[in-house]
Amino acid sequence: MEKLSDDEIYQKLEELKGWKYASNAIHTSFQFDNFKDAFTVMTRIAFEAEAHQHHPNWGNVYNELEISLSTHDAGGVTEKDFKLANAIEGIVEAKN
Amino acid sequence: MEKLSDDEIYQKLEELKGWKYASNAIHTSFQFDNFKDAFTVMTRIAFEAEAHQHHPNWGNVYNELEISLSTHDAGGVTEKDFKLANAIEGIVEAKN
Repeated sequence: MEKLSDDEIYQKLEELKGWKYASNAIHTSFQFDNFKDAFTVMTRIAFEAEAHQHHPNWGNVYNELEISLSTHDAGGVTEKDFKLANAIEGIVEAKN
Repeated sequence: MEKLSDDEIYQKLEELKGWKYASNAIHTSFQFDNFKDAFTVMTRIAFEAEAHQHHPNWGNVYNELEISLSTHDAGGVTEKDFKLANAIEGIVEAKN
């Protein structure tokens, strides 16, 4: 899996609302009604991550969820990150 | 729920292996075999946190889990944090 160029990343981000590129990773955050809702989404994402064999760097406090994606082996952002990002967006949209 | 003094916190930490006090919170980290094991423990902790109505500030990357506990309303560490910390230790011990 090859690291994408900055240009490729910025182009792909145009179709991914709410995500930013910084420090060799793509980042987003979500706010839910409460902890249960946040953890429900995290659980769905966990299954997706495991299925992709590609895992997020993520943090949660109560209703807030922060997610960063990068591909360790490639030293940056790859197609894998965008696949997982799109899956995450699908999960969050289905929740709302 | 009242904020504990530094002395009280350090005394309680003596019975809580692997936890540190810094920046008005208590912190620990765990390493599991893989993501599934980490998320399994997170799920157990999530139920406990919800039951306590007291939630962690936590982050996960693959098999690593970092947890910080503090009581927002009290502006520091309270008995609530130690209750949840002990519950977390029980969950992790049961897992191993």
